[in-house]
Amino acid sequence: MPIRTLVWGENVHEQKNKVVADNYPEGMHNQIAKLLSSDSNIVTKTTTLQEPEHGCTVEALAETDVLIWWGHAAHGQVQDEIVERVAQRVWEGMGLIVLHSGHFSKIFKRLMGSPCALNWREAGERERVWVTSPGHPIAKGLPPYFELEMEEMYGEPFSVPDPLETVFVSWFQGGEVFRSGLTYRRGAGNIFYFRPGHETYPTYHDETVGQVLRNAVNWAYNPNTYPGLLKAPNVPVGEALEKIEERGPTLHQGREGFR
Amino acid sequence: MPIRTLVWGENVHEQKNKVVADNYPEGMHNQIAKLLSSDSNIVTKTTTLQEPEHGCTVEALAETDVLIWWGHAAHGQVQDEIVERVAQRVWEGMGLIVLHSGHFSKIFKRLMGSPCALNWREAGERERVWVTSPGHPIAKGLPPYFELEMEEMYGEPFSVPDPLETVFVSWFQGGEVFRSGLTYRRGAGNIFYFRPGHETYPTYHDETVGQVLRNAVNWAYNPNTYPGLLKAPNVPVGEALEKIEERGPTLHQGREGFR
Amino acid sequence: MPIRTLVWGENVHEQKNKVVADNYPEGMHNQIAKLLSSDSNIVTKTTTLQEPEHGCTVEALAETDVLIWWGHAAHGQVQDEIVERVAQRVWEGMGLIVLHSGHFSKIFKRLMGSPCALNWREAGERERVWVTSPGHPIAKGLPPYFELEMEEMYGEPFSVPDPLETVFVSWFQGGEVFRSGLTYRRGAGNIFYFRPGHETYPTYHDETVGQVLRNAVNWAYNPNTYPGLLKAPNVPVGEALEKIEERGPTLHQGREGFR
Amino acid sequence: MPIRTLVWGENVHEQKNKVVADNYPEGMHNQIAKLLSSDSNIVTKTTTLQEPEHGCTVEALAETDVLIWWGHAAHGQVQDEIVERVAQRVWEGMGLIVLHSGHFSKIFKRLMGSPCALNWREAGERERVWVTSPGHPIAKGLPPYFELEMEEMYGEPFSVPDPLETVFVSWFQGGEVFRSGLTYRRGAGNIFYFRPGHETYPTYHDETVGQVLRNAVNWAYNPNTYPGLLKAPNVPVGEALEKIEERGPTLHQGREGFR
Repeated sequence: MPIRTLVWGENVHEQKNKVVADNYPEGMHNQIAKLLSSDSNIVTKTTTLQEPEHGCTVEALAETDVLIWWGHAAHGQVQDEIVERVAQRVWEGMGLIVLHSGHFSKIFKRLMGSPCALNWREAGERERVWVTSPGHPIAKGLPPYFELEMEEMYGEPFSVPDPLETVFVSWFQGGEVFRSGLTYRRGAGNIFYFRPGHETYPTYHDETVGQVLRNAVNWAYNPNTYPGLLKAPNVPVGEALEKIEERGPTLHQGREGFR
Repeated sequence: MPIRTLVWGENVHEQKNKVVADNYPEGMHNQIAKLLSSDSNIVTKTTTLQEPEHGCTVEALAETDVLIWWGHAAHGQVQDEIVERVAQRVWEGMGLIVLHSGHFSKIFKRLMGSPCALNWREAGERERVWVTSPGHPIAKGLPPYFELEMEEMYGEPFSVPDPLETVFVSWFQGGEVFRSGLTYRRGAGNIFYFRPGHETYPTYHDETVGQVLRNAVNWAYNPNTYPGLLKAPNVPVGEALEKIEERGPTLHQGREGFR
Repeated sequence: MPIRTLVWGENVHEQKNKVVADNYPEGMHNQIAKLLSSDSNIVTKTTTLQEPEHGCTVEALAETDVLIWWGHAAHGQVQDEIVERVAQRVWEGMGLIVLHSGHFSKIFKRLMGSPCALNWREAGERERVWVTSPGHPIAKGLPPYFELEMEEMYGEPFSVPDPLETVFVSWFQGGEVFRSGLTYRRGAGNIFYFRPGHETYPTYHDETVGQVLRNAVNWAYNPNTYPGLLKAPNVPVGEALEKIEERGPTLHQGREGFR
Repeated sequence: MPIRTLVWGENVHEQKNKVVADNYPEGMHNQIAKLLSSDSNIVTKTTTLQEPEHGCTVEALAETDVLIWWGHAAHGQVQDEIVERVAQRVWEGMGLIVLHSGHFSKIFKRLMGSPCALNWREAGERERVWVTSPGHPIAKGLPPYFELEMEEMYGEPFSVPDPLETVFVSWFQGGEVFRSGLTYRRGAGNIFYFRPGHETYPTYHDETVGQVLRNAVNWAYNPNTYPGLLKAPNVPVGEALEKIEERGPTLHQGREGFR
């Protein structure tokens, strides 16, 4: 069964900025979806901020194995309730791929528990993305490095938790470096942050970037979802696996925990 | 200069429940502070939920190197604004020690980005805390294991991110296990979760528990605070470390980033 | 294409000890292989210490995607040259699953870089294996815990590096705990340590243990092998990606590095 | 009590190569020791490959809290027995700082369990070392980045296990990047790899490099050494913490484990 992937696009600059509109006439989300189409193991839908519930209804998320998130100008417009819903689906096992300026999206900051800040410069400079973990599934089929002739610079320190694995590190023409591909796990959900993708440049028309995204979808997919992680059930004394006698004073008369 | 430690107590059950009040006539926070007093490298203050701004004013946090957090019944009463303030201080480098039922505190869930759920049973059963990392600073001076004759059971799965280090794992009489001592880092802040401490039992009168807490304060203290992690500054093209020419279209005319 | 799995058995106690021979009349390796046979995605071969080159010839390893290792009494008889060969295949991307007393095998100690010691007791006591990461692929289809009525006890501290992920923690009847399922990555190779499997008990006849092993093979398989990790190539100055002029004194006239 | 630090120098190129001898007339080890001397919390000794037992006698290591290792041309001349001795001291809690070409030293490869390979170029190019974890103790007092005008290039992939923490990432003029500061823990021993330090350049005369080394010594020092990690003791049935009856067949009649 193919991996059901949902590409979420903020779809703001495509409507407002001629350069971005020319770059991505059908919207960035649709171009990202196009990059995934060559992998027969992936079926893709797209949605945007402007849809009801930002396109992240309970039903839509229930049918999503991997969510890809691109946002920039309108992070603040994403409703907190939807952010919590997405977080819970990640904990249950939905994969999440956060792109570029999505480092400051509510959902990424929510799952990282850290500022997710960085330095930046928009000068159309050369970025060279080095593969630091060439045996990682996300690096499958990639050359030792690939170049994006014009990109926005993101520079360290990138204030995220130390990752499970560092897959890419970028070199920038202007003298900075950045950890460009990082993996995390939250609950049963695999999370991948991938740096490139400034909207004024043609990054999502790049075939190697496409290979990274296809690899990342395959990696992030977890067939072993686990919806139970949100519960904190009481285990009654009489059902203890080893026989014990209740002792001492008790607080939880009704066997309901506090939150 | 000694480590300025602030013990935060919820101070609810001490006021409402005779067993807890008898256990901790001066409040749990003051008993925890007493456990720290034998370490001349630590100076301790205490505060509670009931204080203005829950005792976590900007000034109070600015003078705190390590914050210890015990809460249970009233997590929901902690104001979100204060939670954010504490999180930012942790990112800047304040250490944080979260105790027992604090696994469901807003601040711990905020920093973990995960559900932090578990199974539990209040039966006064025996807990045996095993040291899994005997060379860790938090295990200094501890025996291979220590026992708490009556404790609340917490059972796996504990839905937190995989930690930097697992320092303790608990065995419970009724048949469960739990990762009882876990370390994390968020920004410049060291975080330690320590399981024992149910309020109806005399856990914070236990000398070995005291040793753990003193060790944890010394470990969590970071003399290298770094307040800059929250900023995401633009680096002007003319100030690039390697000379570059600006190329291509630009979005950020005013050099202000989006959030 | 199915995952080519090689089960390596020490095959010593099966020949010498009547209890073990009765437990595993065809050898432990063949019984472990039988547990894998219900997964149509896995094809399995077996080999033993007694074969030429311990059955780990260059050819055999080249045709192996995942190697399962069970050894106990004869770790010292495994030739160092073969250990290095296996280590290099792991670095290239072969998965490795190390079972029970294999914690002291040369190959596991080689890859961990740590003592890999523990406490132990052979008393036929009850082990209860708890799933600490229920959303992990290795936990797929498992109940929250499973019991082995008679097992050898292994107790903490287990002196291995902190793992990428802790998948299982065991409770023992006699009062100990143990991190029973741990994941690592070395080069391109995924490594899983799984605790149960003492030869005098019928552990590898247990269907849940079989499920764990099948899951582990699927998890450990890395389709993105990377043979290049062992090289340390010189990059000639004239081939630098950004044009540079050679400056300063030089040591490596012949462009050969030291090892 | 100050941290007893031993600087180990290979001391080969200083004797053979005029450039290196001019750079480090007293040997690299003595210059590195000089960098530590401004920290009153550190007392330093030096030793070299040429000393009996390479200066790493049982007595010398017993009096060492942190060992700094620089080697390049003569890794192969270090006796395996000494490597094992150093590894065991690290497991017991001695800190280890491995410098530059020490990535291929026997002791580093032994503790990493991985190839530790990389790409390299000796062209006297500019290296800019970025601090990726500015709140880490090893980054204390450092600017956001520091430059070494002439250094040897090391490029990714660096085939080491994913670290606990990435403290530095380097930018190279010729277009490469490298994770230049990585932390690990093996047993009770803290390990730090630091990239800069090619012998034909004046790197160890740089004051910022000195600050890094002083910070690293303070970080690597573990006051909680734990010599017991190498043992794998049997726990007799009669001494089990919870009363159990011995059941089933037994293998270890004499209560001696296998290795």
